[in-house]
Amino acid sequence: MKNPELLEKIAARDQKHIWHPLTQHKTAKAPIGIVKAKGALIWDEEGKSYIDGIASWYTAMYGHSHEKITAAVAEQMQQLDFVMFSGFTHEPAVKLSEKLMEILPNNQEKIFFNDNGSTAIDAAIKMGIQYHHNKGKTRDTIIAFEDGFHGDTFGAMSASGISSYNGPFEDFLLKVVRLPVPQKENIDEVLERLNSIVSSHSCLAFVFEPLVQGAAGMKFHSAEGLDKLVKVCQEQDILCIADEIMTGFGKTGKSFACDYLQNLPDIICLSKALTAGMFPLSITSCSQKVFDAFLSDEVSKGFFHSHTYSAHPVGCAAALAGLELFQSEEITQRRQYIAKHHNEFVNRLQHHPKVKNARTIGAILAFEVDVNMDRYGKLRDKLYDFFMERGVNLRPLGNTIYTLPPYVITNDQLQHLYDSIEGALEIV
Amino acid sequence: MKNPELLEKIAARDQKHIWHPLTQHKTAKAPIGIVKAKGALIWDEEGKSYIDGIASWYTAMYGHSHEKITAAVAEQMQQLDFVMFSGFTHEPAVKLSEKLMEILPNNQEKIFFNDNGSTAIDAAIKMGIQYHHNKGKTRDTIIAFEDGFHGDTFGAMSASGISSYNGPFEDFLLKVVRLPVPQKENIDEVLERLNSIVSSHSCLAFVFEPLVQGAAGMKFHSAEGLDKLVKVCQEQDILCIADEIMTGFGKTGKSFACDYLQNLPDIICLSKALTAGMFPLSITSCSQKVFDAFLSDEVSKGFFHSHTYSAHPVGCAAALAGLELFQSEEITQRRQYIAKHHNEFVNRLQHHPKVKNARTIGAILAFEVDVNMDRYGKLRDKLYDFFMERGVNLRPLGNTIYTLPPYVITNDQLQHLYDSIEGALEIV
Repeated sequence: MKNPELLEKIAARDQKHIWHPLTQHKTAKAPIGIVKAKGALIWDEEGKSYIDGIASWYTAMYGHSHEKITAAVAEQMQQLDFVMFSGFTHEPAVKLSEKLMEILPNNQEKIFFNDNGSTAIDAAIKMGIQYHHNKGKTRDTIIAFEDGFHGDTFGAMSASGISSYNGPFEDFLLKVVRLPVPQKENIDEVLERLNSIVSSHSCLAFVFEPLVQGAAGMKFHSAEGLDKLVKVCQEQDILCIADEIMTGFGKTGKSFACDYLQNLPDIICLSKALTAGMFPLSITSCSQKVFDAFLSDEVSKGFFHSHTYSAHPVGCAAALAGLELFQSEEITQRRQYIAKHHNEFVNRLQHHPKVKNARTIGAILAFEVDVNMDRYGKLRDKLYDFFMERGVNLRPLGNTIYTLPPYVITNDQLQHLYDSIEGALEIV
Repeated sequence: MKNPELLEKIAARDQKHIWHPLTQHKTAKAPIGIVKAKGALIWDEEGKSYIDGIASWYTAMYGHSHEKITAAVAEQMQQLDFVMFSGFTHEPAVKLSEKLMEILPNNQEKIFFNDNGSTAIDAAIKMGIQYHHNKGKTRDTIIAFEDGFHGDTFGAMSASGISSYNGPFEDFLLKVVRLPVPQKENIDEVLERLNSIVSSHSCLAFVFEPLVQGAAGMKFHSAEGLDKLVKVCQEQDILCIADEIMTGFGKTGKSFACDYLQNLPDIICLSKALTAGMFPLSITSCSQKVFDAFLSDEVSKGFFHSHTYSAHPVGCAAALAGLELFQSEEITQRRQYIAKHHNEFVNRLQHHPKVKNARTIGAILAFEVDVNMDRYGKLRDKLYDFFMERGVNLRPLGNTIYTLPPYVITNDQLQHLYDSIEGALEIV
């Protein structure tokens, strides 16, 4: 007798018991069953392949199932699969902390481990609250950009400013005041607004995605402007928390987006490309100043925040393998290739009548289609279907089309991705 | 030239850049460097072995680095390491949802995936808020037990009632009213208190650790009493959220602690033993009633909560292997063996003059030492050191000594664990 599971497609079986994230199950189409991933490609259960044009939410930058990462995971889980990280430590965590110190902005000194981007942000905000608390001060307000996105736990969600995510939860959030992102033309206004916020509120931290707001639709802002905002905050001892969960590990051309700044953040959050998507792991790093505020003879001034899997040895091993790839000659060359071709493609797109605001930095390329459409509207779905039909996983955010391909995307795959984007402009 | 890393111990290198959870770094001793784990044992960098008497925070129940789990992980990461779970699905997630349905309380219908216990709780609370919001109601209060612990993100922390964790954050929490846990002798009072809360507040959810409060010191309460509380809440459409992160997968003798109840929770949170600690993964399961409240032609009534790694294929594969072990004859027999010997040991402990409130259920055994001590005081550290010296990883919570050993602990190891506990009573 045949296994009844094999008679039915994954996509059909999925509908019985699975609740997908970011999905209105009444109106959504059945999901696509994915069975394989390798390099820049993923395959569905019909055997069709897709170029992973957004590196599975900006994680798989060195390619899916990279043998160096799978080998590191396999070795680590045989040796030490897991042990609690309170009172104990282990080589993968220590080595990862040492290696990260070599590439993080040079004011960063300590590494605190979490499991995903949201929890890295929640931990960062809690560090900010307790930093002031331990110094005998009560500060209650977070500064964050309009349209920022930082995750979905309550702290991260509070810092986020995208209403489609937060609607039902607005009465349950931390106190946040919002700032427009600085552009060349509005820096003085934004600075004035920040000064006004700082003088009228008791601000504990400023949380921001440096240079590029991902979920908002890959919106860019001015490094020079951000630098000035950080300076103002730091003069008031407001901790600056850089959310580099999306931007980290080369996405913006430099190792971290903060490398474009003169005034370095007090806290940096990392995840996604950290383990190339192989393992849920995130990091909240900080300067010595932050760490020192928690040192005391009073036990309770320590940071009593913990997740079971903190500094998971297997996750740290995956991250170490990922870091080695990130620093390899091969990946460095691919990053330069992508940046150069993104630039050329943006130059071409800029002249297209249906394209607005074509932009690129590092491996990120985005533009707006010059038509009105809803974030979750029909035209967005039409574009998504168009790309999938052509074997390209690209997910327009409203009228923003963007790509952030794995660094290992081949020249031909990158060309096909560009061709598909130009093709999509014909149907809008 | 020798690698300079090898000249220095892991524990020493650790101090430079690592910030440990739950640690006051000014006064804490250097952590112990752990280099290996297998079965119920872990080894430090001096070659000394320890019985993992609390299964690395209640995760490694089938033993560290179990070959069935490492094989499942190795196979999955070669095939499909990771893909986003919005619009896409995959066999490991679908199969895991099907298998969980076979063992979860039978009102559970849908599986939502997260990465750790805290995020499972944050998602559950958000489900609770939006459940009422989608029905046009605004409810703002969570009911939770005194001394409960549910995690460290802002939502989970709000539901938790242990002050050593929440001190600096008290002004930043969701609105929670607290209920004493029901014991045989106070059920009527607790019911009265609940009725009073329900009539004076607009309650959205009741969050509880069923039967055993872990971080509070393995405190037990009455299943019969809890059952009555759940009934009262459900009559008011207050969603009942069972935090089975610690208790799930056989810890209390049955598959889930909720299996002791007649009135089943609307939402259940699982993690820890779910993947045997091999991979950060958690689940927020729910009844059809909860899921249906999110179905609408309005996109925004969907649940716009997501983590990058939702339903990670490798995590799901690890969980499937873990489930198979959980249901195996071998593990079932070991669970019975442990429960039987825990019972015998508790019967002996009950007569010890320094022992109060010796108790056991399933694989959990706990008692209080009848002396005054602080949760993080010197006597607690003395006991911890005593156990570590004897090669047993047990972590007293204040004056509570408890064990929750891996199901695969051998007869001799279990006896050594009991002997060490009796030995510890000689030094207090």
